[in-house]
Amino acid sequence: MKMSFEAQDPGYESRVRRSFSEQKVMGLIGARLLIVEPGVVEIDVPMRVDLTQQDGFMHAGIVTAALDSACGYAAYTLMPADSSVLSVEFKVNLLAPATGDLITARAEVKRYGKTLTVCTADAVADGKICATMLATMICRPKTKPNKN
Amino acid sequence: MKMSFEAQDPGYESRVRRSFSEQKVMGLIGARLLIVEPGVVEIDVPMRVDLTQQDGFMHAGIVTAALDSACGYAAYTLMPADSSVLSVEFKVNLLAPATGDLITARAEVKRYGKTLTVCTADAVADGKICATMLATMICRPKTKPNKN
Amino acid sequence: MKMSFEAQDPGYESRVRRSFSEQKVMGLIGARLLIVEPGVVEIDVPMRVDLTQQDGFMHAGIVTAALDSACGYAAYTLMPADSSVLSVEFKVNLLAPATGDLITARAEVKRYGKTLTVCTADAVADGKICATMLATMICRPKTKPNKN
Amino acid sequence: MKMSFEAQDPGYESRVRRSFSEQKVMGLIGARLLIVEPGVVEIDVPMRVDLTQQDGFMHAGIVTAALDSACGYAAYTLMPADSSVLSVEFKVNLLAPATGDLITARAEVKRYGKTLTVCTADAVADGKICATMLATMICRPKTKPNKN
Repeated sequence: MKMSFEAQDPGYESRVRRSFSEQKVMGLIGARLLIVEPGVVEIDVPMRVDLTQQDGFMHAGIVTAALDSACGYAAYTLMPADSSVLSVEFKVNLLAPATGDLITARAEVKRYGKTLTVCTADAVADGKICATMLATMICRPKTKPNKN
Repeated sequence: MKMSFEAQDPGYESRVRRSFSEQKVMGLIGARLLIVEPGVVEIDVPMRVDLTQQDGFMHAGIVTAALDSACGYAAYTLMPADSSVLSVEFKVNLLAPATGDLITARAEVKRYGKTLTVCTADAVADGKICATMLATMICRPKTKPNKN
Repeated sequence: MKMSFEAQDPGYESRVRRSFSEQKVMGLIGARLLIVEPGVVEIDVPMRVDLTQQDGFMHAGIVTAALDSACGYAAYTLMPADSSVLSVEFKVNLLAPATGDLITARAEVKRYGKTLTVCTADAVADGKICATMLATMICRPKTKPNKN
Repeated sequence: MKMSFEAQDPGYESRVRRSFSEQKVMGLIGARLLIVEPGVVEIDVPMRVDLTQQDGFMHAGIVTAALDSACGYAAYTLMPADSSVLSVEFKVNLLAPATGDLITARAEVKRYGKTLTVCTADAVADGKICATMLATMICRPKTKPNKN
């Protein structure tokens, strides 16, 4: 079944884009935020040698970083303006080596709830799904960023 | 139940350390390979601002990269000399924010099999478990490294 | 991305239906095998009081039994004639209470491989997804049934 | 790291045993509640032919039912008197065929939280771990049982 959602906060897109720009690790790995729609987010990561594991594929942790941020922000598009989002848990199946010029992670909300939101996401590399995620996100009252 | 294992390849430690040094992403995130024993591997990652998510905690994808490499190499200690290891799938529960000076990921083999090996791993930050992984690894014949 | 598959064994449907009839637990819980197509299987379980948990919903273990058998047989439709199928692992998210007259579990293959096949499945109750599964199945040479 | 917990509700054991007796499916599959301690619950299920899958092993759904109830009740021992517990999600790895005279599922709380509690559980059959679960449970205000 395909879900379709409406955002309760009209400022959802700029809220998501601002939060993404605060994820400093996204800069480190070269991830880019593409689509931000109610319940849907797409992030891509161009391949780089310093993102690889021992066989020259993109490391599962980097693919997971993109999938997890995509799921978190897909959930966050549907949350209230004064909320923050945290990952509760996720599962990733690696379906094929992450090769090619870039991977694109597309996340969709499967079930939205006031507290818990469940998302699925696929990462595509070279025209093939290389990884899929099933994740649970939690909505929290907005907290001050930790300045470490 | 606590498992205890013997390595079939006496050169398991240097084989694991060599493969870890070929995971270029471990250099990017500053991960260090600590313990390498039969069925057990520890990796740590010192905290850095460029590893953080929007609240200043270490991003779940980076914690996952350390947990996944620890699980993969814990499995790899028990595999034959001419094998390679790949992640089939993993699940991560985030139990607490990854704060403090560093996170330490410790993986242990739970069930070793010729084809599939199941591992568990905890990541500890600031004296507390911040994340736990349950993962499946697959043993493959050695392949030539992809020179991309 | 939507997958579409062809069965290599023209006798896949009767092979799956015979194996399902040998799962004695499906009789105990009243599960029925509905659709059997290449890469797709549907199973339903009519609600009964003796399938419930403490709040009167169908117990997650019973919903999982239906999802797991649906995933296993979806994978099995694509396997060779002389193979058997076993679950390696699965993850289930419970999205809503399993209420109403019956639950219907529909599984689809996401990635078929000679050794490992990954499936997703949704269980629908009362017109709503109540649970979703992401599972890994393994193809084994046919073994003699264990007569216990 | 091994956790140790105290129950905030002195009546935790009778509360858990009462709720278990209300899970009618536990009667159907012949499950018995053994140990109930703060953060720890053990349930066993004697083998029966009508619990098997196609190879004569106990079906993964039945093993999961025992693991899930054990995790839920391990979490529930630590929750307040006027709460109820629901499964959010779980992952199960099947490590060996569930054979022998019975399976014993032992669950332990890994992280207790006001809202979400994370548990691990192993199912042992014939002296061997046949399955392991990593699960998330949610604490809800007590609801009236659904009389269906």
